[in-house]
Amino acid sequence: MPLLFSTLSTATRRRVYLKSLFSSSRFISTTSFALEYPLSHPIYTVWGSNTAVGKTLVSAGIAASFLTPTSTSPFKFIYLKPVQTGFPSDSDSRFVYRKFGEIFGHRKCNRTVFASDETVRVSAPAGELVLGSRGSVETQNFTKCESGFWELGSCDGRKLEGEGGEEVRVSELICKTMYAWRDPVSPHLAAERENAVVADAELLEMLKKCLCIGSDDGMREDEVGVFTLIETAGGVASPGPSGSLQCDLYRPFRLPALLVGDGRLGGISSTISAYESLKLRGYDVVAVVLEDQGLVNDVPLLSYLRNRVPVLVLPPIPADMSDNLMAWFDESYSVFGSLKEVMLSSYSERMQRLHDMPKKAVEIFWWPFTQHKLVPEENVTVIDSRCGENFSVHKGKYQDVMIQQFDACASWWTQGPDATLQIELARDMGYTAARFGHVMFPTNVYEPVLKCAELLLEGVGKGWASRSYFSDNGSTAIEIALKMAFRKFLFDHEEHVASWGSDMKGTHVELKVLALKGSYHGDTLGAMEAQSPSPYTGFLQQPWYSGRGFFLDPPLVHICDGTWRLSLPGKLRSYEEKVADMFFGSRDEIFSKSRDDSSLARLYASHISEELLVFSAENLSAHIGALILEPVIQGAGGMQMIDPLFQRTLVNECQYRKIPVIFDEVFTGFWRLGAESATELLLCKPDIACFAKLMTGGIIPLAATLATDAVFDAFVGDSKLKALLHGHSYSAHALGCAAASKSINWFKDHRTNHNLKTEGSMLRELWDVELVHQISLHPVVHRVVSLGTVFALELKAEGCNAGYASKYANNLLEKLYEDGVYMRPLGNVIYLMCGPCTSPATCERLLEILYKRLQEFGKEQSV
Amino acid sequence: MPLLFSTLSTATRRRVYLKSLFSSSRFISTTSFALEYPLSHPIYTVWGSNTAVGKTLVSAGIAASFLTPTSTSPFKFIYLKPVQTGFPSDSDSRFVYRKFGEIFGHRKCNRTVFASDETVRVSAPAGELVLGSRGSVETQNFTKCESGFWELGSCDGRKLEGEGGEEVRVSELICKTMYAWRDPVSPHLAAERENAVVADAELLEMLKKCLCIGSDDGMREDEVGVFTLIETAGGVASPGPSGSLQCDLYRPFRLPALLVGDGRLGGISSTISAYESLKLRGYDVVAVVLEDQGLVNDVPLLSYLRNRVPVLVLPPIPADMSDNLMAWFDESYSVFGSLKEVMLSSYSERMQRLHDMPKKAVEIFWWPFTQHKLVPEENVTVIDSRCGENFSVHKGKYQDVMIQQFDACASWWTQGPDATLQIELARDMGYTAARFGHVMFPTNVYEPVLKCAELLLEGVGKGWASRSYFSDNGSTAIEIALKMAFRKFLFDHEEHVASWGSDMKGTHVELKVLALKGSYHGDTLGAMEAQSPSPYTGFLQQPWYSGRGFFLDPPLVHICDGTWRLSLPGKLRSYEEKVADMFFGSRDEIFSKSRDDSSLARLYASHISEELLVFSAENLSAHIGALILEPVIQGAGGMQMIDPLFQRTLVNECQYRKIPVIFDEVFTGFWRLGAESATELLLCKPDIACFAKLMTGGIIPLAATLATDAVFDAFVGDSKLKALLHGHSYSAHALGCAAASKSINWFKDHRTNHNLKTEGSMLRELWDVELVHQISLHPVVHRVVSLGTVFALELKAEGCNAGYASKYANNLLEKLYEDGVYMRPLGNVIYLMCGPCTSPATCERLLEILYKRLQEFGKEQSV
Repeated sequence: MPLLFSTLSTATRRRVYLKSLFSSSRFISTTSFALEYPLSHPIYTVWGSNTAVGKTLVSAGIAASFLTPTSTSPFKFIYLKPVQTGFPSDSDSRFVYRKFGEIFGHRKCNRTVFASDETVRVSAPAGELVLGSRGSVETQNFTKCESGFWELGSCDGRKLEGEGGEEVRVSELICKTMYAWRDPVSPHLAAERENAVVADAELLEMLKKCLCIGSDDGMREDEVGVFTLIETAGGVASPGPSGSLQCDLYRPFRLPALLVGDGRLGGISSTISAYESLKLRGYDVVAVVLEDQGLVNDVPLLSYLRNRVPVLVLPPIPADMSDNLMAWFDESYSVFGSLKEVMLSSYSERMQRLHDMPKKAVEIFWWPFTQHKLVPEENVTVIDSRCGENFSVHKGKYQDVMIQQFDACASWWTQGPDATLQIELARDMGYTAARFGHVMFPTNVYEPVLKCAELLLEGVGKGWASRSYFSDNGSTAIEIALKMAFRKFLFDHEEHVASWGSDMKGTHVELKVLALKGSYHGDTLGAMEAQSPSPYTGFLQQPWYSGRGFFLDPPLVHICDGTWRLSLPGKLRSYEEKVADMFFGSRDEIFSKSRDDSSLARLYASHISEELLVFSAENLSAHIGALILEPVIQGAGGMQMIDPLFQRTLVNECQYRKIPVIFDEVFTGFWRLGAESATELLLCKPDIACFAKLMTGGIIPLAATLATDAVFDAFVGDSKLKALLHGHSYSAHALGCAAASKSINWFKDHRTNHNLKTEGSMLRELWDVELVHQISLHPVVHRVVSLGTVFALELKAEGCNAGYASKYANNLLEKLYEDGVYMRPLGNVIYLMCGPCTSPATCERLLEILYKRLQEFGKEQSV
Repeated sequence: MPLLFSTLSTATRRRVYLKSLFSSSRFISTTSFALEYPLSHPIYTVWGSNTAVGKTLVSAGIAASFLTPTSTSPFKFIYLKPVQTGFPSDSDSRFVYRKFGEIFGHRKCNRTVFASDETVRVSAPAGELVLGSRGSVETQNFTKCESGFWELGSCDGRKLEGEGGEEVRVSELICKTMYAWRDPVSPHLAAERENAVVADAELLEMLKKCLCIGSDDGMREDEVGVFTLIETAGGVASPGPSGSLQCDLYRPFRLPALLVGDGRLGGISSTISAYESLKLRGYDVVAVVLEDQGLVNDVPLLSYLRNRVPVLVLPPIPADMSDNLMAWFDESYSVFGSLKEVMLSSYSERMQRLHDMPKKAVEIFWWPFTQHKLVPEENVTVIDSRCGENFSVHKGKYQDVMIQQFDACASWWTQGPDATLQIELARDMGYTAARFGHVMFPTNVYEPVLKCAELLLEGVGKGWASRSYFSDNGSTAIEIALKMAFRKFLFDHEEHVASWGSDMKGTHVELKVLALKGSYHGDTLGAMEAQSPSPYTGFLQQPWYSGRGFFLDPPLVHICDGTWRLSLPGKLRSYEEKVADMFFGSRDEIFSKSRDDSSLARLYASHISEELLVFSAENLSAHIGALILEPVIQGAGGMQMIDPLFQRTLVNECQYRKIPVIFDEVFTGFWRLGAESATELLLCKPDIACFAKLMTGGIIPLAATLATDAVFDAFVGDSKLKALLHGHSYSAHALGCAAASKSINWFKDHRTNHNLKTEGSMLRELWDVELVHQISLHPVVHRVVSLGTVFALELKAEGCNAGYASKYANNLLEKLYEDGVYMRPLGNVIYLMCGPCTSPATCERLLEILYKRLQEFGKEQSV
């Protein structure tokens, strides 16, 4: 409906500046991975199911419930208002500060409390109002910041003397407004109007500092209780100052939430919807509290929540503005007491769970690819959540703290989403589950699977594939591909069938695959059989493995000492001196189609022909029924980059012989190597290709095996028995297909993926070429490969330090883990992997951290 | 926090009657599967992001935009208000009816419109008010219904004469209120107070009738345009009269939505949250329209929606109550025009998509287990959505209509959720995706996987399993189980290792599985090798299959001619006359542990021993390394029930010989057979068991292989190479684990699963025993099996009519498809499968439909 939109956009009322504010496709700024917060005391966020539902009264009531009961033990209550508009006439932190003073006096407490209220930064218009009210004497405390804010260098404070209490150490109420604007409108409007916008990252950085107030003064927290409350502005999805919705803005911290519900007519609906918006961002809501307006809204709310989240009801708030609310606070006393208990017990439970998880994990999990004996409880990582490329990880060894780590192994190479895509995927998963759940696929059609198949055929299958077969993971996609290829081979070589045995039962025929050494295609038996022997395939792992392939040794390319170079396998090594192009000026040269005319290309071709002849001579009853390869980079085999010229030659030689070609793009597909499909790099097409991992954006398992019509035709006939009788219960499940459609579209759209080159669909260079060069020169580094979202290096190692089972890199990775980089080694090969949308700045930072630790590592090795 | 809740519940303000209203765990009543609606014209639902956002004004504006423009072509506009409170002083349908009349007069239209307004049912208190206002003369038209409602037998109506228009055929405005209550409060409150509650199913049934008004008068719709608008009450999640949230209540129809947003302060948040609540129920929102309140809320909304959904802005609504709004409607004219265009074009696009889908599907899909040549375009089922056990299916052959079908094959046996669980799963999927996306598993722990593993070990693994290994589907779970079992076998028989070859490389040793004929374990090569030869395993399907098993012929049990009986395999058939217990009085007898002492038990034991001796004698270098079986029922093998005594004996014989036992519970697990695990029926424990399918409630793929500590210990050692080196990228993905936890808890909780017996965790009988008996007596029926959620029957068939590739049942299934029952055959075996929570009444209805069609089928066969 482009016509319609253009009509709308010309409407005079639309304001251009707002358009520009909201034109950015990213609502959540890529946050640094240094955002951390203490878990040593409870921190809660107060959210409103609407405006004017009484969030600040609730905050004041909670503050009072912590600080006014009879007690001599000191306590520190921190109230934070990150965003305040209508300032200075409106100030929620001042309200909490003042109202608390009144309650304190009213209740005649026996402790002493030092209360303060501070506003850190104000917009210039708001600052001028403050200035006007205070008089010129105080102007020297004002600092004008660059971003259009003034720093207010002062704060209100007073000592509230308790009655008859022994003053051991004073309690504290610290109220703080982080940013304030003058106009009493939504923060994004006020920020624009007053020319004082604060970026999300900056706001979160200040919030992070404020969250440390409770634990940074050297007091032992078991002596002084601490509680922090953050109050948001407006409703849960009201925009913050940058325009990001607040529920998105604060998401990296994912602090537990208290939702102030709506007791009015319509309040059931707005409370439930607000609750759902918080859940859709991964927040935990520990309690709902709402004002009684005589409509008993709490009963349907409790029912909706199935009694799992308490719903508390506050007495009606007096409408009379002159009421000092002391009677109301008295009446609410027990409710706030309950709320306090709920929050404290929920915090204790959370901490208990976080601490118990490693022990339970080592007791009942059976981790894949893990020698449990080598993973003591203290080495278990407790992942609290993920936000885009970052994990939130609980560290509880010395001090309880939640830290962020960059998921540099992309969780087994599946990850791609930035924080914004993750939230969009979450909504789509909810929608698709609600609309379809799962529905069975054969002979049926439903929207997500049709969209997904179309996107695959127009994208990774463009120019060759015309059918999409769905399954659950890379391994099953390979099993299907092999079945397709073998049938196609038998179909194409029908004339030989008679000699192979009657009725194509093939009793005397053995089909094998042609594959490359170092290949990996998955862990189910069929996929294993197609790969060369490796630590994964031994008798102890799978006694049925025999290696039904003819495995060639491929030539490799990588950066050694600053230069891309070719490394020929044993059988070809004697030609090394004759080959003109053993070195490359740039990576682009390696992928150049012009190499097809080189003497090396002819060498490759004759070598392959020779090998195939040798195979035929040695295996009289066996035939090569398929070629299978991982295009460009073998992942699990150690991030080895194969000479693309060799792979292209191999494909040509096989297709010439009518041997179906399978590309295993499970790792390489969907921009992992910088192109949507690795066929774009290899400059040749397969007959069959397998995709999984990044296909769903890294959210749930789904795989696709794409094929040409010619392959499909080998299964068409009159009998069901001729059809491909392979399937899994969740074939083409709706959630997976919906996730794939969303992610693929996200990655290939310039508006959402800023890494796409202006022309075409290739990614720009993510890993700083100079830094990569420098790293490759480091004495501990044997070789480096960088391509697309992958940066890999092999440490020089010998003996038991080399190979898959090596623990050689462990110390290095532990240090990187401390730096906030989560990596997993492949023996002495380590790698960094980002998403298709990750900014080059983040990649550069990762390389810098790595380089620093490599230098330390080098010194240790040389000692 | 039980203490806290009890405190809350004693609060005096809580009303007991509301508690009872909301105590039901089901918010969505199980709807009949006859809910259908016409697609021959657009039907939209108007939702509000809050109360008082102007839904009814929007409805009136849309009605006017359809009926007032200059045109002579007749048009029928239907406005439906299913739920009205505050009646008769408030009546939205009357408002639309009257306001339309005013606009009509104001605009001087040239067509003639007959407008009417009717209120169908009112509560007695509302009826009395109507009575009072009308006077006693009209009382004869009132009918008192049983449910506390009065039927109002009259309607307002008038002919609006156009100016200068030629009256060919009149246009119509039909306004209708379905149910009305007196008190101006939320419908659930009004319904309770006025003692007039309407069940969801009843309300939907009336709505269904009203939705047919547009297409039931024999007019050809290409001659008369029709448009239906349904206006909800309050906000999207406001409760309806039964207490169900309206977004849940109307979900079975899943009509496209128009969301009236909120232009006020806070309105961005409430509009986004309302939108998200609709998405979380699977609704499609085609446009957002909101009143301009000077805050430019539409800009951030458009940004949030990424321009994919248009956001239209209405001019400010005059606050003056005496304003007749004619000027406002004039000013809004173009906005309503755009809205109309959006809705019409969205409808056309939807219809186009629905019609195109089958063609696209046959062109680009490659369905599993499907001979494409046998599936012409017209046999493709377009599934628009699922609601609990039902599909919504588009039928467009003669007339476009959306019908509902019971998913009686449980979408390849994966399905379990009722409509309420589906919505809860949707929210949990959104939450988990937002919180975790996917995070990698090895050496890590995160909440969903820990919860899931605990539930598995406390549930299906109770009493034997202590480790949980996750993978993606049944087939991979089996591959893992085999690797575990073989290692355990080698570990337990270490003393023989020396003679098997040096270093346990086993070059001269072949390990085989012991399995039953007719078994099925999946389609990856390892799983295939463990099953006996079948149509799935031929050379054309997988040339690498060799059948690495020793396959025994099992004794079967089933109902034949009204009696449960035993059917012994060939080798044992000679004993048939000697066996005392060939017939059983009931199914319970078959599962009785007391049979262990029978002569049949001894016969089984000696038979098994003998077979194993024969195997050893014939296979000198081969050993039985594992027993694998599907407990109680072999699913894909044709829904064959194996004598549990035989399976138990087999397990005992193997465990005695230290052969690890694998239960393949992929099909049987999680109440599929009436018990959480089939081990409860078999009364013996495996060493390893595999689960998938129903585990996630049928929403996404996830599998688990559970094992004993003894099995786990065979992989513990100092080297990583001794660990189980098998894994899939999404191992233990967070979404799957969260879905599994939710579903398992839902199925095993008496509050959510009303099928659980009061004691223990077994399901009550779902298939009416008498009807099952009757069906088994039918002459076309060879045998019947009914257990848990499964009812299966084998049709008598011979030659090509029997077996997997048979199309014998196709005609029968096509008839059942017309009846709203979606089934898939296993050759001449057909089955009905429901979820663990499906009501016995639904099952009875399914059996009745089946029986009726069987009788027809019988007559056809005998002709």
